[in-house]
Amino acid sequence: MAKREALPEETVTASRVIYEGRKANLRVDTVRLRNGRTSEREILEHGDVAAVVPLDDDGCIIMVEQYRLAAEGVMLEIPAGMIDAGESAEDGAQRELAEETGMHAESLVKLADFYVSPGISTEVIHVFLAEGLQPAEASADDDEDIVVRKVPLSTAVLMAERGEFNDAKTVIGVLLAARSQRLLR
Amino acid sequence: MAKREALPEETVTASRVIYEGRKANLRVDTVRLRNGRTSEREILEHGDVAAVVPLDDDGCIIMVEQYRLAAEGVMLEIPAGMIDAGESAEDGAQRELAEETGMHAESLVKLADFYVSPGISTEVIHVFLAEGLQPAEASADDDEDIVVRKVPLSTAVLMAERGEFNDAKTVIGVLLAARSQRLLR
Repeated sequence: MAKREALPEETVTASRVIYEGRKANLRVDTVRLRNGRTSEREILEHGDVAAVVPLDDDGCIIMVEQYRLAAEGVMLEIPAGMIDAGESAEDGAQRELAEETGMHAESLVKLADFYVSPGISTEVIHVFLAEGLQPAEASADDDEDIVVRKVPLSTAVLMAERGEFNDAKTVIGVLLAARSQRLLR
Repeated sequence: MAKREALPEETVTASRVIYEGRKANLRVDTVRLRNGRTSEREILEHGDVAAVVPLDDDGCIIMVEQYRLAAEGVMLEIPAGMIDAGESAEDGAQRELAEETGMHAESLVKLADFYVSPGISTEVIHVFLAEGLQPAEASADDDEDIVVRKVPLSTAVLMAERGEFNDAKTVIGVLLAARSQRLLR
């Protein structure tokens, strides 16, 4: 994660907790800006996420389809989930890969990490390319209904360009995985 | 936005409002899953966002650097902001471009739209490529301290690949803009 130093920080003068929940907390901070004015910042406190582009020996990526209530529809995404307390991003990626697709990766390479929405959320997604896939022992999350789909990486790139993935981590994972495989021309 | 039909939806059996705020609301829904079990879904209700890759006649993109409290650091991003009520995504993109960079675009082409975090947030970002840039009349938001930076698109692509942008919309905007210009090989 490349932090940049240039502007002075906003100064937090007050902070109130609105909600402490299962996957996220919400707080509202009062900040003093450089110009002396005061503003409020709503901050969703959300743990880090590990996401995986699982690339098999046939050049296909293993994707998951699931209903997303926030999007009110079924979405086709790369496997991902929240990193547990005390778990590394790599271990979280392997665990989510096993839980959602039943596979284990011999090789994991970091493709990117990014804030999903730095104006409001602390959520960072760490995206890995996973290769050398082997069947893993795993049990699925009991509150996720997931269907696994194989998509050739070259097809996935075209889908990303045509706007057929509507999920940030999936667009980024597919495009960077294709770049790493020198598939993008 | 390409919605897929396959899995039955989760059924929302209860919904409670936790917070109604300036940029977002938070609610918690109780859902019944296909397997009959019950679970909770925390949903951040967030308006749509317009983001712009402003590409000038010299092949540079105009980026903005600002402090992001949620990320606790300064980030280099493409211009973006929430779409106002009654405003189209295109009009929001032009307004944010003017407010943040002082430019107006003769041409706007949609590159993508995507959920930033469909497991928890309703936020959708619409990303446009903006060309034919001309000085615009505009006044900046009074609660944003923004520094404008020009970056050659070819450099931005390398920065995206090296993980030097830590913002989802910026990675996606840069990679898809480069593809649209046939800059990616």
